[in-house]
Amino acid sequence: MTDAVNDHTASNLAAPKPGTPNLGGPLCACDTFVHRHIGPSEAEQAQMLTSLGYETMGAFVRDVIPDSIRMEGQLQIGPERGEHELLREFRLLAEKNEVWRSCIGMGYCGTVTPPVVLRNVMENPGWYTQYTPYQSEISQGRLEALLNFQTMIAGLTGLPLANASLLDEGTACAEAMSMCAQIAPRKPRAFFVAGDCHPQTIEVVKTRAASMGIQIEVGDPEKADAGRFCGILVQYPTTDGRVECYEKMATRAHDAGAVVVAAADLLALTLLRAPGEWGADICVGSAQRFGVPMGLGGPHAAFMATHEAHARKMPGRIVGVSRDANGKPALRLAIQTREQHIKRDRATSNICTAQVLLAIMASMYGVFHGPKGLRDIAARVRGLTGALASGLEKLGVDTHDGNALRPFFDTLRVRVSGDPEAVHRAAAERRINLRRYGDGSIGITLDETSDLPLVMDILAAFNGGADVPFELHELSATEPKRYDERHTRTSAYMTHDVFYSYHSETAMLRYLTELQSRDLSLAHAMIPLGSCTMKLNATSEMLPVTWPEFAHIHPFAPRTQWEGTQTMFDTLEAWLADITGYHAVSLQPNAGSQGEYAGLMVIRAYHQSRGEGHRDVCLIPESAHGTNPASAIIAGMRVVGVKTKNGRIDFEDMKAKAEQHREKLSAIMVTYPSTAGIFDPNIREICALIHEHGGQVYLDGANMNAQVGLCRPGDYGADVSHLNLHKTFCIPHGGGGPGMGPIGVMEHLAPFLPTHPVVEPGSAGAQAIGAISAAPYGSASILPISYLYIALMGSAGLRKASEVALLSANYMAKKLSGAYELFCTNDAGRVAHEFILDCRGFEKSADVRIDDIAKRLMDYGFHAPTMSWPVPGTLMVEPTESEPLSELERFCGAMLLIREEIRQIEEGRMDRGDNPLKNAPHTIEMVSDDEWTHAYPRQTAAFPTADLRRRKCWPSVARVDNPYGDRNLACTCPSVSEVSEN
Amino acid sequence: MTDAVNDHTASNLAAPKPGTPNLGGPLCACDTFVHRHIGPSEAEQAQMLTSLGYETMGAFVRDVIPDSIRMEGQLQIGPERGEHELLREFRLLAEKNEVWRSCIGMGYCGTVTPPVVLRNVMENPGWYTQYTPYQSEISQGRLEALLNFQTMIAGLTGLPLANASLLDEGTACAEAMSMCAQIAPRKPRAFFVAGDCHPQTIEVVKTRAASMGIQIEVGDPEKADAGRFCGILVQYPTTDGRVECYEKMATRAHDAGAVVVAAADLLALTLLRAPGEWGADICVGSAQRFGVPMGLGGPHAAFMATHEAHARKMPGRIVGVSRDANGKPALRLAIQTREQHIKRDRATSNICTAQVLLAIMASMYGVFHGPKGLRDIAARVRGLTGALASGLEKLGVDTHDGNALRPFFDTLRVRVSGDPEAVHRAAAERRINLRRYGDGSIGITLDETSDLPLVMDILAAFNGGADVPFELHELSATEPKRYDERHTRTSAYMTHDVFYSYHSETAMLRYLTELQSRDLSLAHAMIPLGSCTMKLNATSEMLPVTWPEFAHIHPFAPRTQWEGTQTMFDTLEAWLADITGYHAVSLQPNAGSQGEYAGLMVIRAYHQSRGEGHRDVCLIPESAHGTNPASAIIAGMRVVGVKTKNGRIDFEDMKAKAEQHREKLSAIMVTYPSTAGIFDPNIREICALIHEHGGQVYLDGANMNAQVGLCRPGDYGADVSHLNLHKTFCIPHGGGGPGMGPIGVMEHLAPFLPTHPVVEPGSAGAQAIGAISAAPYGSASILPISYLYIALMGSAGLRKASEVALLSANYMAKKLSGAYELFCTNDAGRVAHEFILDCRGFEKSADVRIDDIAKRLMDYGFHAPTMSWPVPGTLMVEPTESEPLSELERFCGAMLLIREEIRQIEEGRMDRGDNPLKNAPHTIEMVSDDEWTHAYPRQTAAFPTADLRRRKCWPSVARVDNPYGDRNLACTCPSVSEVSEN
Repeated sequence: MTDAVNDHTASNLAAPKPGTPNLGGPLCACDTFVHRHIGPSEAEQAQMLTSLGYETMGAFVRDVIPDSIRMEGQLQIGPERGEHELLREFRLLAEKNEVWRSCIGMGYCGTVTPPVVLRNVMENPGWYTQYTPYQSEISQGRLEALLNFQTMIAGLTGLPLANASLLDEGTACAEAMSMCAQIAPRKPRAFFVAGDCHPQTIEVVKTRAASMGIQIEVGDPEKADAGRFCGILVQYPTTDGRVECYEKMATRAHDAGAVVVAAADLLALTLLRAPGEWGADICVGSAQRFGVPMGLGGPHAAFMATHEAHARKMPGRIVGVSRDANGKPALRLAIQTREQHIKRDRATSNICTAQVLLAIMASMYGVFHGPKGLRDIAARVRGLTGALASGLEKLGVDTHDGNALRPFFDTLRVRVSGDPEAVHRAAAERRINLRRYGDGSIGITLDETSDLPLVMDILAAFNGGADVPFELHELSATEPKRYDERHTRTSAYMTHDVFYSYHSETAMLRYLTELQSRDLSLAHAMIPLGSCTMKLNATSEMLPVTWPEFAHIHPFAPRTQWEGTQTMFDTLEAWLADITGYHAVSLQPNAGSQGEYAGLMVIRAYHQSRGEGHRDVCLIPESAHGTNPASAIIAGMRVVGVKTKNGRIDFEDMKAKAEQHREKLSAIMVTYPSTAGIFDPNIREICALIHEHGGQVYLDGANMNAQVGLCRPGDYGADVSHLNLHKTFCIPHGGGGPGMGPIGVMEHLAPFLPTHPVVEPGSAGAQAIGAISAAPYGSASILPISYLYIALMGSAGLRKASEVALLSANYMAKKLSGAYELFCTNDAGRVAHEFILDCRGFEKSADVRIDDIAKRLMDYGFHAPTMSWPVPGTLMVEPTESEPLSELERFCGAMLLIREEIRQIEEGRMDRGDNPLKNAPHTIEMVSDDEWTHAYPRQTAAFPTADLRRRKCWPSVARVDNPYGDRNLACTCPSVSEVSEN
Repeated sequence: MTDAVNDHTASNLAAPKPGTPNLGGPLCACDTFVHRHIGPSEAEQAQMLTSLGYETMGAFVRDVIPDSIRMEGQLQIGPERGEHELLREFRLLAEKNEVWRSCIGMGYCGTVTPPVVLRNVMENPGWYTQYTPYQSEISQGRLEALLNFQTMIAGLTGLPLANASLLDEGTACAEAMSMCAQIAPRKPRAFFVAGDCHPQTIEVVKTRAASMGIQIEVGDPEKADAGRFCGILVQYPTTDGRVECYEKMATRAHDAGAVVVAAADLLALTLLRAPGEWGADICVGSAQRFGVPMGLGGPHAAFMATHEAHARKMPGRIVGVSRDANGKPALRLAIQTREQHIKRDRATSNICTAQVLLAIMASMYGVFHGPKGLRDIAARVRGLTGALASGLEKLGVDTHDGNALRPFFDTLRVRVSGDPEAVHRAAAERRINLRRYGDGSIGITLDETSDLPLVMDILAAFNGGADVPFELHELSATEPKRYDERHTRTSAYMTHDVFYSYHSETAMLRYLTELQSRDLSLAHAMIPLGSCTMKLNATSEMLPVTWPEFAHIHPFAPRTQWEGTQTMFDTLEAWLADITGYHAVSLQPNAGSQGEYAGLMVIRAYHQSRGEGHRDVCLIPESAHGTNPASAIIAGMRVVGVKTKNGRIDFEDMKAKAEQHREKLSAIMVTYPSTAGIFDPNIREICALIHEHGGQVYLDGANMNAQVGLCRPGDYGADVSHLNLHKTFCIPHGGGGPGMGPIGVMEHLAPFLPTHPVVEPGSAGAQAIGAISAAPYGSASILPISYLYIALMGSAGLRKASEVALLSANYMAKKLSGAYELFCTNDAGRVAHEFILDCRGFEKSADVRIDDIAKRLMDYGFHAPTMSWPVPGTLMVEPTESEPLSELERFCGAMLLIREEIRQIEEGRMDRGDNPLKNAPHTIEMVSDDEWTHAYPRQTAAFPTADLRRRKCWPSVARVDNPYGDRNLACTCPSVSEVSEN
C-alpha cells in the first residue's frame, strides 16, 4: 500500500532552492497568522474572484465599496506577525503586571476557578465559540447550565425568578432602578441609593438616572422618606462590610408603595438571611466570586432575581422550560416576545445580551461545590475575617469604625491612630492591596483565596511592618458574638439534584462533556449569522486571557501594578482609532448596547455643552437593530423613524425628517454597511446633511468587519461609533456573552468620554458623561484577544480579512441567487459582507415558513442564519473571512437542497404537512424510532447529504414549543417528576 | 415555579453555627482534593460497605489483604492539600527553573506547538484520557490521526511502512538493531554503530546489545567491514551536523547482506534525500520537533519505517485500514497477532505501547503545516544556520571542524582559537546553551524557534561577548554552496489530501473536533479495564505539564537551570520509595516495559557483581502479562513458566521449579495482587523461597493501585518493582501512551540503577547498568502529574484511594456475581481492585463470544473491560476509586441487561444468529437506515436503556473486520477512490 499520489504532487515538488539562504522573507517567522485566520487560500480566493467575473481583488472591491469612501493608503498597524514571536513579546508585556494579593473588595474578590471548569469551559472552544442560544434545539447544553444558574440565584436570593445574567453589578442596579419606575409608575420618578453602596454602583446609577429623568438621592436608607421614591437600593452587606438588617426599612418602603432593591454578595448569602426573606423585591449583584477571575474588572456575570409578578418587566434573557414536538422537556429562552422591551419608543432597557460564558462558569462553580461546599467556603472567609478582627483589636486598631459591633462577613473598615499611609506602605511591602477611604480609614476584604499567612501579613502591616507577637490561635476567643437571627440564614437553597450530583472531578468532567455535546459551536460548523460576524477566535488570541497577570488583578489595584495592561490599552485605543479614523477611543462600554448608550450620551453631553441641551430627536432607520432605538430612549432621546428602501436609507425621507426636526435634531443612528448588507453610496451625503441640521452622526459599528482597512467612519463623516469587539475583533461570543463595545469619537466629542469614580481611564474627558460600566475599562481581561488579533494580522492582513469577508459573501450570494431571491444588491449587483435571502414566497407556495428552513438546516448540521431580521421572512447570511471555501460550498449545498425540497412541496411531490422541513429538526431518537410514519424516508431526515455520515452535530431535542413554555413559565430546574416522561 | 425541594433539604440546613469561627479545620483550604478524586462520597462508601456486610472500611480491608502483609502505620507523604495552595506552591518550584534558549541539539530541538493543537489535543481530556485503541469502533478518531502519522513518516523517510510510534530515538535504534538480527539471521550477531550518532543513542544501544548478546562496534561507517555485521546504524545528519551521503556505504552493506539503519531528523528530511532513497532499510528517529515540547527529555514520539517485507518483524503498533461489518472503510490496529513478538521465549521486543498522544500531536503538526509549510520551516532553519556559519567565518571561527565544506542542516560544530569556555560564558550571559564536545569544540543547533536576534546573540558570544560589528545582510553572500544532488530531496511526500485540507485554524479546529467526536474517553464514561487503572487524570495535575518552565527545557541543559525540577525529582523519588518500601528509585524508564527491562537488568548486574553471572533463569507465572517474559528474554534470561490456580501462583509448582533451577535461578517476576485480581496470601513465602534459592524477586507494579498505603512490596520481600505512573499515579493514557515506568529497588540493588552518558541522574548507581532511555529522567515533563497527585492526596488520601478501589471492585463483583460467574475470589470470597467475569459458557449456551459482549457494551455507551486476559473468554473489570457510584451502577446495569439478552438467546426467545450482541455495535447509520431487517427492534439496538437517550457516545463504524485488514494490509492514508463507498 502506498500513498495516494494525487494532484498535490506538483505543488509538493516546488521546493525552495537549496543552498541559498535568503536573508529576506524566508528568515522571518514561519508561523505568520493571516493564512491561518482567513479560510480560503490565495488560490481559492482567485478562483472565487474568477467565478464572480473579476481578475483582481481590487476590481472586485471597487464594485462593492463606493469610490467616495474607499480609504487611501493603509492602516498604521504594521506588518503581520508570527504567533510564536508575538506571544513571546506579549509575555514580556504581561510580566510588567504584578499580581498582588487583593484585599480591596468593593465587589471584586479573589476566587478559585475549579480547574476542571477552567480547562473544560473557559479554555474550551466547544463552549466559548457558541452563539446565543436562539436555536434551542442545538443549544440545550448551555440552556441547562443557565437554568442551573437561575436556580442557584433564585435559591440564594430567596426570590423565585432569576434571569440568565446581566453585564455587571453597576448596570444591574441601573436596570433595577428602571424596573422600580415601571413597577411603581405612580410614584415620583426618584430613586434612593444607600450611601454605603459600592461607589462605582452609585456612579453608574447616577449616569443612567440622569438620562432617564430620574432623580437620585444618596443617603442613609433607614432615614429615607420612602414616599418620595419609586425605589430604594441598599448594598448587602454594605461596601464597608456591615451586615445590616433592612427588614423594617423594607416594610416602611412597601407601605409607601416603593420597591426595595438589594445589591447582594452571593457568597455571603449562603450564611445571611436571604434578601427575599427580609423584604427585598429585586436582588442584584455580581456572580464574579463564584469562580470567575477578577480580570481587572470583567467580564463577569451579574445577576438579577425578583418576584414572578415582575417577570415581564425584568431585563435581560430568561431561560425557561418548555417541551419539544414530541412532548419531551426542552429548554429555550423564555418570553422572548417580552424583548419588545428593547423595542422602539417603549424601551425600558437596551440590554440585548447576557454574560453567558461567565454565568455558566459561576453555575458550574455552584454545581461543583454544592450548597454545603459554598457554605464551607463562606464560613472559612468569615472565620478568617473574625480572626483578623481579633488580631487587629489586640493591636489596638479600631475595628468598630463604621461597623460598631455590627456583624460582618468578609470586610472590615478600620481606623488607625497613626498615619494610615504607613499601614498601606507596610502592606505594599508584602504585596498586599488594601482599600483607601477618603477619611483615612482602611478597608480590608478577605476571600476564598485568603489564608492564615495572609491574615498574619495584614496584621504585620498594622504592626509597623513587623510580625505580630502572637499566634492566631490566641485570637479566636476574642471574636465577639455579633450575629443574631435577624442576620442568619435558616432557609434551604440549591436543593435540586444537580447541585449534589457532580462533586467528584470525574462526575463534573462528564457533566460538562455531556452538556457540551448538545450544542453546536464554531468547532463543528459555520454559524453564518448575519450581523453577528462569527469568525475565528484563534487560540493564540485566547491564551493570555487566563494568564494570571491578566486574570488575577483587581480593577482598582494601583495602576503601577498593571503597567503592561496599560500599555496594551494605549496601543489598542490607538489602533482602534486608526481603524475607524476617530480621534479617541474609550474602552469602558462592556457590550454593544453599552457602547450605543455611551455614544449617545456623549452626543447629548456635547449638545448640552453648547447650550443645545434641547436637542433630543434621534433619527433611526426602520431597519435598525432594536437596540438602537432602545439605547436612544435610555439616553433620553425621542426616536423618529426613517424609511429605508432596497437596503438603503430613503434619502428623501431622511432629508424631510431632518428638516422637520432641525431645531431638535440630536443625532442619526445609522448602521454601515446597512443592516441589509449594502454599502449605501450616499453615506457621505447623509452625514453632511445631518451636520447641516445641527445633528451628530452615530454610526453603529456592528458591521465594521466589512470596512477595516477599506474605509473609515471618521473619514466619511461619522462622529461616534461603537465597535463590537466580539464581532469584528475576535472576542468569542461565549454562547451569548461576553461582549465588548468600546466607542470611538471625533475630536469635538472626546471631552465627554466616560470616566470612573475610582480609577480614571486615560481616555476620560474633562466633561465626562460619568461612568457607564462598573469597571473603568469594561471587560478588561478579554481585551488581549482583540489586541492580539490586530497585531497578528497587521495592516495588510486586516484589509485582506475585510476583502475576503466581502468576497465570501458575494461568492455565496451568487451561488444561491439562482434558487433564492436576494433581497437587495447594490447597483453593481453586489452585496457587502452579508446578504439577505428572501423566503417570503415559500409560505404561500409550500406552507414553508422561515422557521422550517432554519430547523431543517440543523438536519444538515448547520446553525441557521439570522432569521427574519432586518426583514421578516428572510434569512441573512454572513460567512466571514474565516470560513474555508469548502464550508461555504457545504452550506450552499445544504441551502440548495432545501430549496429543492421546497420545490418538491410546491410541485406536490412532497406532502405539504408531513415533510422534512415541517418536522425538522430530526433527533437520533426520531430517526431510530421503531415507528416511522412519515411520508419521506428516514435517510432523508437523518443524512440528507452523504458527508453528514462522517460528521454531524445532532440536535438533542425536536422542535421546541415556545408558546407552551411561555404559557407555563418555569425558569428554575424542574424536579425529577416534572421531567419524567411517564 | 419554585425549586423542587427534595430530600436534600435536610443536609442543606446543616449550616455551620454563625459567629464562632473555629481556627482549626474550617480555616484550612476548602478546595481539598481527596473528595474530588474519589468517586463515591463518604455516605456512598458506607452504603457500599453495608451492602457487602461490613461496618467499617477496616474490617473490609482485613478480608481483602492478608494480615501478613498489611502495613503498620502510614505513609510519610503528609496531609492532603488544597489544589489552589498547592499549585501556588508548585508555581514557585517552577520558577526555580530557567528557560534558556537551547542550541544544544543532540536530537532535541525547540519547536512551536500550533496553539490550536496545544489547546485542543494536548490540553484536552477528550484526547488525553483515551485508552489504547483496541476497541476500534470507538477509536476511529485517534486511529485516523495515527494513520496520518504513519503516512507522514512513510513519506518523509521514503520507506513505505511506518509504525504508530516508539518510545524514544535511543530505544528505537535498539529495536532496529534487534530487527537487523532477525532480518539477517545468518550474519554475525554484531552491530555497527556510527560514532557520530547521538551519544545517548550509542549508550542505549550498547545496554540493549549487552543483554541480547550482540556485539557492538562504534566507528566510521565508511570504514566498517559490512560482512562482520548484521546491521549498520548511521545518524542523518550526524550528531555534529554533517549531511553525509551514505549511498555507497549502503550498497556495500547490502552486498554483504547487512541491514542499514538510519536515525534521521524528520525536519531535515523535507530538504534532504530520503533514507529510503539512498538505501536505508530501516529509518528511525524522533518526531519531537514536530510540535512536541522538549520537556526535559520527553515524552515524545519516536518513529520507525521500513520495507513492507519486514512488516511482521517491526516492533510496536501499526494502524491499518480494514472494513466494518457493513463493508465501509474502518481503521484498527493491524496484524495484532504479530504481537506474539512479545510472547514468551520467542520475544524479540518487549514494546507493548506507543506514544500515541505525542504521535498525534506530531501528525497534526504535519497536517496543519502541510509539506510546503514544513519545507518553509526547514528552509528557514537552514538559512539561519547558513547565516550563522557566514558570521562565524567572518569572526575567524573555524566552522570546518568536523564538517569541512560538507553540507549542514541546522547544526555546526566549530572550534575557536581561544578558550572555548569563554564562549560558553558569553553565551550564558545571553541565556543561551551551546553544546560542549570533549575536545573543546562547540556545537550549535538552530531550530524553528530560532530567529535573527538569536543568531546575532550567538555571534556576539563568539566575539568576546560584544555585539558583532556587521549586519546580517552582509553575510548571506558568503554562505558556500555545499549541496549537490546527492543530498537534495526531489521526491514528493505527504501527498494525501489530509495534508492540504486543514491549513486554516478554523478548518484545523473542526478536524480535531470531528476526530475527537468518534472516540470514547474518560470524559464520556468509565473505562473499566482490568490491569489498566483508568482513573481520574485531574486538571490540577495536568496544568503544569504545559507550563514553559517544564515544557521548554532541553534534557541536557545544565542542571542549574532546572533546580525546581530537580527538587521535584528528589521528592518524587522519596515518595515512591516510601510508597513501595524500597530504598531507591530511578525515574529513567519511560514505559512499564522499560521498567521491567531495567529492573531485570539490575538483577542481572547484581548477580554478575557477585560472580553469579550464570544465573539466568526467570520464573514467570503462566498468567503474567506477555511483557514479563518478553522483557526477561530481552534482558538475556531464560523463561521458566510457573503454574497458577485460582488466580494465585501454584506454590508447589513454583517451589519445584525454584529447586530444579536453584543453581541458575536469577529471578521470579510476579504481579501483585495477581493478574487475576487476588492478594495471594503466600506472597511473603514466595519471596522468601526465591531468596533461599539465590534468586531475586521482581514484583510487577502494574497493580500498585490496590496497595498504596496498605502494603508495600519492599516490606514483604520483593527486591525490585516498576511503577506504572500512567496507571496508579494518574498520568493519563493519552490514547495509548505516554507512560512512565520508574523502578524502585532494595538497597543491595541500588548500585546498579541506570545512568546516562550526558546527564547523570541522582539515582545512578556506581555500577550502573548503563542507559535505558534516551533521556536521563525518561519522560520528565509528565512527572509533575504524579508528583501533584501524591501531594494533593497525602498519606491518608492515598490509602483511602486504595481502599475505595478495592471497595468498588468488590461492590461490583457482588452485584454481578448473580448473573456472571466470578473466575476467582480469595478465601473470604473477596477480590482485590479488579475481578474476572467468566463468560466461557456463553459460547456454547448462546453462541455468544467475548467479543460480542464487548461490542454490545458499546451500544450501552461503555468501553469494554479487558478481554480474554489473563484468561481467555473472560472479562476483567477494574473500576478504580475515581468512578462515581452512579457510574458503577450504570455499568452493572448494562452488564446485567446483556446477561438477560444472552438468556433470551439461551432460552430461544432471541435468534442465535441475528441478535443485538452479534450485530453490535450499532451505529446511527444502522439504526436510522431505511431498511431494518433484524429480529429485534431498532430501539433495542440504539437505546437499550433510557438514560442513553440523554447521553451516549456512539460508535462511528460497525464491527471492524480484523482478518480482512490483515489480509489486505494498508497502513497509510487511503486515497479517495479507496474509501469511496460506491
